[in-house]
Amino acid sequence: MQAINASIGFDYRLWREDIQGSLAHASMLASQGIISQSDEAAISAGLTEIGDAIAAGTFTFDPALEDIHTNIEAWLVGRIGEAGRRLHTARSRNDQVATDFKLWVRNAIDATDIQLRDLMRALADRAAEHAGAIMPGFTHLQTAQPVTFGHHLLAYVEMLARDRSRLADCRHRLNQSPLGAAALAGTTFPIDRSMTAQALGFDRPTANSLDSVSDRDFAIEFLSALSIMAMHLSRFAEEIIIWVSAPYRFIRLSDAFTTGSSIMPQKRNPDAAELARAKTGRIFGALVSLLTVMKGLPLAYAKDMQEDKEAVFNAADAAELSIAAMTGMVRDMQADEVRMRDAAGADYATATDLADYLVRDLGLPFRTAHHVTGRLVAAAEARGIDLADLPLAVMQEAEPRITQAVFATLSIEASVAARSAYGGTAPANVAREAAQWQESLR
Amino acid sequence: MQAINASIGFDYRLWREDIQGSLAHASMLASQGIISQSDEAAISAGLTEIGDAIAAGTFTFDPALEDIHTNIEAWLVGRIGEAGRRLHTARSRNDQVATDFKLWVRNAIDATDIQLRDLMRALADRAAEHAGAIMPGFTHLQTAQPVTFGHHLLAYVEMLARDRSRLADCRHRLNQSPLGAAALAGTTFPIDRSMTAQALGFDRPTANSLDSVSDRDFAIEFLSALSIMAMHLSRFAEEIIIWVSAPYRFIRLSDAFTTGSSIMPQKRNPDAAELARAKTGRIFGALVSLLTVMKGLPLAYAKDMQEDKEAVFNAADAAELSIAAMTGMVRDMQADEVRMRDAAGADYATATDLADYLVRDLGLPFRTAHHVTGRLVAAAEARGIDLADLPLAVMQEAEPRITQAVFATLSIEASVAARSAYGGTAPANVAREAAQWQESLR
Amino acid sequence: MQAINASIGFDYRLWREDIQGSLAHASMLASQGIISQSDEAAISAGLTEIGDAIAAGTFTFDPALEDIHTNIEAWLVGRIGEAGRRLHTARSRNDQVATDFKLWVRNAIDATDIQLRDLMRALADRAAEHAGAIMPGFTHLQTAQPVTFGHHLLAYVEMLARDRSRLADCRHRLNQSPLGAAALAGTTFPIDRSMTAQALGFDRPTANSLDSVSDRDFAIEFLSALSIMAMHLSRFAEEIIIWVSAPYRFIRLSDAFTTGSSIMPQKRNPDAAELARAKTGRIFGALVSLLTVMKGLPLAYAKDMQEDKEAVFNAADAAELSIAAMTGMVRDMQADEVRMRDAAGADYATATDLADYLVRDLGLPFRTAHHVTGRLVAAAEARGIDLADLPLAVMQEAEPRITQAVFATLSIEASVAARSAYGGTAPANVAREAAQWQESLR
Amino acid sequence: MQAINASIGFDYRLWREDIQGSLAHASMLASQGIISQSDEAAISAGLTEIGDAIAAGTFTFDPALEDIHTNIEAWLVGRIGEAGRRLHTARSRNDQVATDFKLWVRNAIDATDIQLRDLMRALADRAAEHAGAIMPGFTHLQTAQPVTFGHHLLAYVEMLARDRSRLADCRHRLNQSPLGAAALAGTTFPIDRSMTAQALGFDRPTANSLDSVSDRDFAIEFLSALSIMAMHLSRFAEEIIIWVSAPYRFIRLSDAFTTGSSIMPQKRNPDAAELARAKTGRIFGALVSLLTVMKGLPLAYAKDMQEDKEAVFNAADAAELSIAAMTGMVRDMQADEVRMRDAAGADYATATDLADYLVRDLGLPFRTAHHVTGRLVAAAEARGIDLADLPLAVMQEAEPRITQAVFATLSIEASVAARSAYGGTAPANVAREAAQWQESLR
Repeated sequence: MQAINASIGFDYRLWREDIQGSLAHASMLASQGIISQSDEAAISAGLTEIGDAIAAGTFTFDPALEDIHTNIEAWLVGRIGEAGRRLHTARSRNDQVATDFKLWVRNAIDATDIQLRDLMRALADRAAEHAGAIMPGFTHLQTAQPVTFGHHLLAYVEMLARDRSRLADCRHRLNQSPLGAAALAGTTFPIDRSMTAQALGFDRPTANSLDSVSDRDFAIEFLSALSIMAMHLSRFAEEIIIWVSAPYRFIRLSDAFTTGSSIMPQKRNPDAAELARAKTGRIFGALVSLLTVMKGLPLAYAKDMQEDKEAVFNAADAAELSIAAMTGMVRDMQADEVRMRDAAGADYATATDLADYLVRDLGLPFRTAHHVTGRLVAAAEARGIDLADLPLAVMQEAEPRITQAVFATLSIEASVAARSAYGGTAPANVAREAAQWQESLR
Repeated sequence: MQAINASIGFDYRLWREDIQGSLAHASMLASQGIISQSDEAAISAGLTEIGDAIAAGTFTFDPALEDIHTNIEAWLVGRIGEAGRRLHTARSRNDQVATDFKLWVRNAIDATDIQLRDLMRALADRAAEHAGAIMPGFTHLQTAQPVTFGHHLLAYVEMLARDRSRLADCRHRLNQSPLGAAALAGTTFPIDRSMTAQALGFDRPTANSLDSVSDRDFAIEFLSALSIMAMHLSRFAEEIIIWVSAPYRFIRLSDAFTTGSSIMPQKRNPDAAELARAKTGRIFGALVSLLTVMKGLPLAYAKDMQEDKEAVFNAADAAELSIAAMTGMVRDMQADEVRMRDAAGADYATATDLADYLVRDLGLPFRTAHHVTGRLVAAAEARGIDLADLPLAVMQEAEPRITQAVFATLSIEASVAARSAYGGTAPANVAREAAQWQESLR
Repeated sequence: MQAINASIGFDYRLWREDIQGSLAHASMLASQGIISQSDEAAISAGLTEIGDAIAAGTFTFDPALEDIHTNIEAWLVGRIGEAGRRLHTARSRNDQVATDFKLWVRNAIDATDIQLRDLMRALADRAAEHAGAIMPGFTHLQTAQPVTFGHHLLAYVEMLARDRSRLADCRHRLNQSPLGAAALAGTTFPIDRSMTAQALGFDRPTANSLDSVSDRDFAIEFLSALSIMAMHLSRFAEEIIIWVSAPYRFIRLSDAFTTGSSIMPQKRNPDAAELARAKTGRIFGALVSLLTVMKGLPLAYAKDMQEDKEAVFNAADAAELSIAAMTGMVRDMQADEVRMRDAAGADYATATDLADYLVRDLGLPFRTAHHVTGRLVAAAEARGIDLADLPLAVMQEAEPRITQAVFATLSIEASVAARSAYGGTAPANVAREAAQWQESLR
Repeated sequence: MQAINASIGFDYRLWREDIQGSLAHASMLASQGIISQSDEAAISAGLTEIGDAIAAGTFTFDPALEDIHTNIEAWLVGRIGEAGRRLHTARSRNDQVATDFKLWVRNAIDATDIQLRDLMRALADRAAEHAGAIMPGFTHLQTAQPVTFGHHLLAYVEMLARDRSRLADCRHRLNQSPLGAAALAGTTFPIDRSMTAQALGFDRPTANSLDSVSDRDFAIEFLSALSIMAMHLSRFAEEIIIWVSAPYRFIRLSDAFTTGSSIMPQKRNPDAAELARAKTGRIFGALVSLLTVMKGLPLAYAKDMQEDKEAVFNAADAAELSIAAMTGMVRDMQADEVRMRDAAGADYATATDLADYLVRDLGLPFRTAHHVTGRLVAAAEARGIDLADLPLAVMQEAEPRITQAVFATLSIEASVAARSAYGGTAPANVAREAAQWQESLR
């Protein structure tokens, strides 16, 4: 039973938030006259002392005391006596743990936000650097149309911006203080919940005591946001792994982000990318864990909810590592613009530009232009040459109105430059977007 | 291959959005001079006609045409000829399907929001009705402290309010138009993406074409929000199932929300609640499906992403059924206030009130009061009587300063009335909160 | 990078298996003449020494050495010099880790099997004790037909027997040795893989080196089997939680498996059951994690696969705790046969017996008998009496051929006794089944 | 409520199993004298007739009749009258649906097994064909050591063999008949459960009636086995997608398994592979769904369990499509042995062979040999040449005992040929294994 009940092995990570919450609570109790000013002073001094000790690593947690809350309170009572016994007036373990955990998640959101901002900045910097570097744009991992490497990197900036926005929404939604909900029904003491809410940086107290102690939405929503973010990182990690594989070699990672083998020093295993990709599993798993735990739980508190913390800690740690690894790789990677450009020019990647020419300059309906282009690509393929090398006469067999002007549309430079509508891959667009991101992320 | 490729069996549900998107696109093309006004008129008339036919159920989808987009375009070309072939100018299947699906998810969010509002209103109405009806407040499904039935119902109102807020955030975040991103790189035509965005009710066009066609965040975020909501419903469903079981019988559901057995007409199986609980599995599963699909996908579009729609349709349908069932049950259920009250009064549910009395009126430190209360409950339990039936003398053995005033705190009515701090279960609080919700949900 | 790469923080748990594998490997190398006998002797002595040190807790793992394998090998080289450098001949980290982890999972299966056997024995003992104790059989948590408590407990014995059978199949399937697959392609040394396989208790070596190092099926299958088992335990845990709630109180748990509150000593929170129910989330999450990690990984080894161990360790620990808690609760719980019996007799639970009488003794078609019974239950319900208290005359109004004999079928004792076909709840059946399980589990 | 309750929209797929079960049940009832021989004859004739009608597509299901079981029974009663009303004697919907669904899952297992066998045969055939075709063996998607293409294909044969073995275990475990468990407690009629079990191909009747109607292990285990299988297919699909991308182009798929774009006919999007990869999400999702549904359900039957069928149907359909697509691709794909071989020879892929030479022929300790090899690879890399092109003198600087014999070990042909220990990639091994699989799968 002790093994199944004890949580100190992981919830010690709440120590800072637990002390912060108790300080706010004691201060409110004194302000409302529920405890004396001198008791409050003793409590505050004691809590500050234990906080310093924990931060200094000189405090030893006692597993027999089950959890972080009991460890701290027991120490406090041992230290300041009677006054310590008054700290828990008008609260309960249930609202205390909800408060602590909300504070922890809020801190984790803030830390993640800072990391994501840093990763976005790194991407925007590299995008600015490579705004005009042409690479193949893939669909189905097949060469489709040329894009610029900067444009590709900015796609991830967009994703991460949504991730930050999701985290911000989660933070805003969680930012109501459960402190004072007590066990489940509220308290009979004349507490001032707005005061503790404000002291702890919450926007307001929660409105329903039963909900306050049985709610873990904030943890699940955090895990949902991390899951989507991890999915984004997994996509980029996958691309990096493919891009550093020998047949691609679009980029090169330094030894700082790869591991070799002492026997094969040429081998640069993209371990950091692989682990970022793999951590996705851990984060999805944490989300499933907590959703499963909460499914079908009657109100209000149930012991099941103690499973919330390890899932969140585990996912937050995984996210932290993954973002740091990706940020490092983004700053580190060397793009091989020549290889990218060569790959972009192959495979008739400007066929769409030819079709657009037929529509725009010759007035063909789009589906008809599509069809004509297909015939021309087939003709080029049959001869083993590029579209730009097809003789004009051959083109005119397919569509007599084609003129010399067609060739201006067939270079990959022309292709990317022409995609200048908002959101398109034109280097001017990419440079402007990258600069705006750099500006806004400064 | 046709079996694995065809999507018309489910994506026909996008017909309305597909037509809406094409209308906006054609109008913009004409406005920008990319197609003629007369072509635009023909396209619009044709699309309106096919829309009417689909709505009327007189249109037959052709599985050989693979998907809804091809079905509509092929019909249009057959109907209006050449002009129809110009509709797809400056767009691609990739941005078209992203646009259609975003519109569908946006509509689903709006529909879910209306349903949730209705369920909240039903709960607020019943909470107002039962603001003072005392029931046992449970933790660990063990009687803990008395609460009111109205307070319990309002806990769900809080949860659902967060659900609506999450959906609103999701809606806001998704509300950027991918139309014009084309295949992945943008287009060479002088399109006006802001114009189509506005016509379709989007706040703005998306900023990066690669991201536009490879993004399915909106679908996953929708599934995340539905998962948390389904978890909430599963908790309420679980409570209903327990409450209608014979030993509880706190509430009674009419035949409209139960199924009997022709052989056991007294049996009122809470099928609606069970299915609402079970649909949680389906929604969690959809979330896991789509997260799994997107994990590790290189940019931009991949066929894998075609798996997005069935998962979302399936979850949205399940959510719709579940919310409707819960709303019906909330309006339908008859609370047995007598049984609830009887259960609330048992099991020393006011022990906390006694402890609070010792702290508040006698000045004992909380932990000490806690300890004294424990001894008194044990004394009452040993005699097989309620706390309120303990002789004062016995109480004074545990703590001499206890006076006759203690008995005023031991009734469940006094207990709930005293929990009047913000968020507490005091009937006055509950009535006020319920009224505010009724007002704001009107 | 070190943070993302290091695994010693968790893979130290493989120390025993790593030493076992190295001993077998060294012995084979010597036997094949690949290393000398004296080298082998030095290696074996060294490995035994470090194993003893780790077991004694006197060995300190060095995080800078990344993982358990390097920690052990580095120590060995430091201890025995040159010979230690020969240990890794003809193997690679990839086949080494696959071997170690398979051995660990195999041990975990064996330990789980022993625990499950013990839980089954506890259930069979209690089933034998309560073979004839009547309780309500529920469907939809509504009283359906009487069953015996012993019968109910044996349902879980059946589930757990399937769990053990699944684990046994998993064990059998995993029991092929990857050792000798080397990095991915096999080795150029004349090794004898059958010899190491046999030494390590494997049935045979694996047949394909690429598969050998990229396979984590055994871990996923183990997690699948644990997930189903956890689901079983969650169902039983849920029942216990409902059964100990005040309105039911079918069973009582001692303080060893509940936690009280010092303020409410009457409260017996079924924490052990709640945590067993909650651990389900953790185990499902681990399964999802590893499935997600492995999805779409190209052969052979990828760093992603390093995520396998924590998921499995976490789930195995959760399973161990849960089974132990359930076993303790089964042995501990006191059934309140009177309350169970009272609940079983209410709610017209023998209506089906009445219908069966109409079919069996009067020859009515089943669906007709069903209908007649419905009318009789409605008549009893309208009068507020039990079926057995309905006057014969009233019964005969519904079906004139009913005689006095009907009353013999309406008692709950008669009901359970009559269900004597194989698998039915008749006490004689239950006693026989329980005895057989006790015998086979001895 | 009808929407939430009706299941005929999907459970019509159980029609064949429902009729099969009813035929066996009626035959047993007559044999035991519970119904008359003439009733049984009428029932059998009626069931056969409706089965023929459904098979012929001439039967119309009535949604008002809720499910497949009621549809069939109502039709039967309408057709043969009184006798039809006797069919449901001594059974219940609960055991009926468990029986039907088990039979369906058993059939799905058998069908999947046949498909997997076919896919294995296709792989073995292609492996035999390419037993000696050298390709780069990857770890971390980095070139590691040369392997043969046949060896790579056989790795999947091993995985699929485990999948089949898992399905066989699942089939064996589920193969107990729940028929006769009735609603939950067994029946009072003198039925012969062994007779129906045998008639339906079950090994024996289930041993506990409560477990019989509340068990869905067989469905979850089936989904677990499919999930692992889908994960295997996703790995192969991923490889195919990478292999057909322009920089690799190790294989080529015909138009039958790719889709082009009418505008870019050179584009061969590997849609079949992408969808096989994507279906993994659907199957994992189904597993999570059903695990979630069953978590914490009290015994015996609950309506929640009605969610079982769609999850299984959905996953089984996805698996069927995926396996068929993979089988088609395996038979279809054309390997470009030249490109594979060229890629295999690059990147110092035989460095391990050099190290092995140092150990085997010169007696260096492995770790020392490892180190020397590292220096030689670095030397070759610095000169931009292959290992085989390093002058002997340069090699001897690193290790003086190296002789001309070293060069024999540095070709990729020598490398694969030397890996001839059991399970290694030597062409002779691969050819032998492929032939054995072809033989055993004939």
